Amino acid sequence: MGKITLQILKGTRDFLPAQFILRKKVIEIIAGTFERFGFEPMETPAMEYAETLEGKYGEEGDRLIYKFEDRGGRKVALRYDLTVPLARTMAMYQVEKPFRRYQIAPVWRADKPQKGRFREFWQCDADIVGSRELCADAEVLAVTYCALKNLGFNEFTIRINNRKLLNGMALYGGVTEKEMSGFFRIIDKAEKAGWDDVKKELASKNFSEETIDKTIALMVDDTQGATALSRLKTTLAGIPSAQEGIAELEEIQRCLVNLGVEQRNVLFDGSLARGLDYYTGPIFETIIEKPRIGSISGGGRFDSLIGMFSGKDVPATGTSLGLERIITVMEELAMVPMTPTVSQVLVTMFARCLFGESLTVASELRSAGISTEVYLNDDKLKKQLDYANKKKIPLVLIIGPDEKERGEVVVKDMEQKTQVTISRQELVNKIKAMMLAGSQ
Amino acid sequence: MGKITLQILKGTRDFLPAQFILRKKVIEIIAGTFERFGFEPMETPAMEYAETLEGKYGEEGDRLIYKFEDRGGRKVALRYDLTVPLARTMAMYQVEKPFRRYQIAPVWRADKPQKGRFREFWQCDADIVGSRELCADAEVLAVTYCALKNLGFNEFTIRINNRKLLNGMALYGGVTEKEMSGFFRIIDKAEKAGWDDVKKELASKNFSEETIDKTIALMVDDTQGATALSRLKTTLAGIPSAQEGIAELEEIQRCLVNLGVEQRNVLFDGSLARGLDYYTGPIFETIIEKPRIGSISGGGRFDSLIGMFSGKDVPATGTSLGLERIITVMEELAMVPMTPTVSQVLVTMFARCLFGESLTVASELRSAGISTEVYLNDDKLKKQLDYANKKKIPLVLIIGPDEKERGEVVVKDMEQKTQVTISRQELVNKIKAMMLAGSQ
Repeated sequence: MGKITLQILKGTRDFLPAQFILRKKVIEIIAGTFERFGFEPMETPAMEYAETLEGKYGEEGDRLIYKFEDRGGRKVALRYDLTVPLARTMAMYQVEKPFRRYQIAPVWRADKPQKGRFREFWQCDADIVGSRELCADAEVLAVTYCALKNLGFNEFTIRINNRKLLNGMALYGGVTEKEMSGFFRIIDKAEKAGWDDVKKELASKNFSEETIDKTIALMVDDTQGATALSRLKTTLAGIPSAQEGIAELEEIQRCLVNLGVEQRNVLFDGSLARGLDYYTGPIFETIIEKPRIGSISGGGRFDSLIGMFSGKDVPATGTSLGLERIITVMEELAMVPMTPTVSQVLVTMFARCLFGESLTVASELRSAGISTEVYLNDDKLKKQLDYANKKKIPLVLIIGPDEKERGEVVVKDMEQKTQVTISRQELVNKIKAMMLAGSQ
Repeated sequence: MGKITLQILKGTRDFLPAQFILRKKVIEIIAGTFERFGFEPMETPAMEYAETLEGKYGEEGDRLIYKFEDRGGRKVALRYDLTVPLARTMAMYQVEKPFRRYQIAPVWRADKPQKGRFREFWQCDADIVGSRELCADAEVLAVTYCALKNLGFNEFTIRINNRKLLNGMALYGGVTEKEMSGFFRIIDKAEKAGWDDVKKELASKNFSEETIDKTIALMVDDTQGATALSRLKTTLAGIPSAQEGIAELEEIQRCLVNLGVEQRNVLFDGSLARGLDYYTGPIFETIIEKPRIGSISGGGRFDSLIGMFSGKDVPATGTSLGLERIITVMEELAMVPMTPTVSQVLVTMFARCLFGESLTVASELRSAGISTEVYLNDDKLKKQLDYANKKKIPLVLIIGPDEKERGEVVVKDMEQKTQVTISRQELVNKIKAMMLAGSQ
C-alpha cells in the first residue's frame, strides 16, 4: 500500500457526532412539521439519467451538474435539486392528487466552494402537486413559517412576489415577452451584485435606459408590503397579468391569516425575482436579518415543470429550506443547547473480573429506554471518568467488588460533582428521576 | 425540448410515500437501538477521493466502485460502504476512544442488478473504535440482536466465527500463511455456490485434495454450536491461533449472556468465512430461515483497516445491517401494519367561500400536534371523500355553511363509516380521543 493522502473533497464535509446530533435534530423538527401538514416522505435516487436533469436549471445551472459515464456507457448525473426528480416521478407514476410530499436529502453541485457554499449539501423540500388553488401556495408558506417557528426562529421575513406581476412590471417598462426570461435572470442578481451592476448589465444587453429605470422603479419601492402593492394596483391598472398577480398575492395573504401565520413575518417585495426558469406564479424567499446570511428558504409555483416530462401541464407549488444556512444561523445565535453525545449514562469497568456485572447493568438500563454506554477498555477509573467528562456524559456508574457484594451501584452526577449509592433494584427508577431532574 | 425518456437507472429506485414511510420507520427503530447503546450518529460525504476507497475491498470489490473525474480532474468515487470512510475519519480526526458511532446512509456499487441486489442501497452500521476487548465485539452483536428484536424479528440466528480459528483450521489442513487469504476468498462462496463448486475451485488453484477435505471437514460440522467448538478445541490443540480464536469466541458468549442476548439466537458456525479482506478476529452474520434470503447483517473485527490510513493500527469492530433485505423480509412476513399515509385527518373544502374556515380548523389541529391535510381543490365532496378513502386517511372533517353558522364540524370515521357532529371548542380533544380509540 502506498501512502494515502488523508483528505476529503473540497466542498464536502465530515460531520462528527457533536455536529451531526444537531443536524439530525434540525432535520427531525423540519420533517415533523412537514408531516403535521400532511406532507408524506418520499425518496428518489441520488443518480439520475443526465438528460432527466439537463435543461431545467438554466445554462449556468446545467454547468454545475455532476455528470459522468457509468460502466455501461450511460450518461449519469448526481441529483442537483429535489424538485426536478419530483417532477419526473409525478410524470412516471399515478398518485392521488392533490399530492403532498416532502424529501430531505443531499444534492450535489460542482460549484466553487466558499464560506457557506458546498458541493454536497442538504435540501428540505415540501411540495403540493395537482392544485391550482392559491391556498396551496399558502399551505406551503405556512409550513415554512411553522418549521422556522418550531426551530426557534422569530425574527425572519418571508418575502413574497409573483412572476405574473413581475411580467406586468416589465411589460409596463417596455420589455417584450421574448426578452422577459433573460431580463429577469439579470434582475435576480440584484441581491448579491447590487442594483447598479444590474442596471449596467441590462444596458449592455440593449435594454433602453427608460425601460430599465421604469421597471426597476416599480420593483424597488421602499414602502414594500401592502402599501406598495396597492400603489402597483393603480399604476398597472391596464395590464391584466399584473392585476392577476396582485389578486393572487392578496388571496394568499387572506389564506395565511386563516392559517395562523403572523402578518409581521410575511412581506410583499416587488424586487424579489428568483432566478430559476421554472417558476410561473407566486414566488417566495425567507430572509434572516441577523446574521445577514441571505435566504434560508425559497420556493414558488411551477405549473409547467412536470409538463416537461409528461407533455401535460400539472400545477405544483413548493418550498425548499436550506439546511446548511439554517444550521449556521442556529449555531451563530446559539439557538440550540449543544448536546455533544446521545449517551445519558456511562457504565465504567472497575476490573476485568467485574466486566460481566457492568454489562448486565448496562443491559438493564437499555431495556428501560436509557441510552447507556459501557466503557470498553480495562483502564484506570480516573481515565474512564475523564472520558465521561470530555464527552459530557451526565451520569457515571461504578460497580466495584464491594458494590457487587452488596448489590449496589455508585452513581456519579458529573455536573453536580456529587455521588450516591443506589441498590440494584432501585437503579432504573432512580436514574430516570435523576435524568428528569437534570434536564429541567 | 426534445422528448425525455421517463426512466430511472437500473438498480436504483423511487420510494413513493407508502413504501418510504415503512423504510423511515425501520431506520428510526434501528437508529434508536444504536443510540440506546451509546452509538453516536455521524456522517461522511457520498463522494470521496477514489484512492481513499481503492484497495480496501479486494479485486472484485474495486471493480464495483463508481468512479469518475470531476471538472477539476480529480479522481472521485461514490461511497462503496460505510466502514472505509469511518476508517479514514478515525485516522484524520482526534476522537475520544473507545469511540462508538453509527451511520445509516446509502452506498453505491456498480453491480449487476438482480432481485434484491441494487446499485444504490442503504447500510446501517454501528462500530466501536479503540477497544481490543472481546466485550466490544459482544456489544456490537448485542446491538444487532436488539435492533432485530425491536423490529419484531424472533426467528433469526447470529452465526459467529473467528478469523484466527479459521486460519488455525487451514493451517491444520496444510494451507500456508501466504495462501490463506486466497483460500478463504473461495471458501466464502460456499453459501451461494455450494461446497462442491468450492472444492472444485480450490482444486483448480492447486490446493491438494487432502488439504481441501481436511479443512472443510473441520469447518462443516453438522452439530455446530458449543459441541462443534469443543471438538475443535481438542482437534486443534497444537495450533495457537486456533486456540486463541476459540477462547475469544467463548469470551464473547459469556459477555452475550451478561448482555441479555438469548442463547438460541447465537450459534457458532465454523464454516462462516466472510469475504472481505479486512477482518482480523471475530466475524458474524445474521441469517433468517424464513424467508430464506441470505444474511441480513454482517460484521466483525478489523484491527488493521484504520492503520491503512494512519500507519498505526487501531482496533475496531462493527456490525452492518442491510436495510433492503430487512425490509423485504418484514414485508413478506407482514411484520408491519401498512400505514400508507402520515395524515391523521383530512379537512375537506365544502365550497370556495368556506376555504378560510377549513384552513383555520386545520391550523388548530396542527397546533395540537395532529397531522392534518387540507383538501386543496374545489371538487365535489364525494371526490374528496374518495380521496381520503384511497389514501386511507382515518378521519375526515366537513364544515358546511350550517356547521359554520352553528360553530360545529362534522367528523367522519372512514373505517367505522360513522359520523358525529362536534362543536368547534371540543374539536381538538374529541379528535385526539378518536385517534387513541382507533389505534387500539
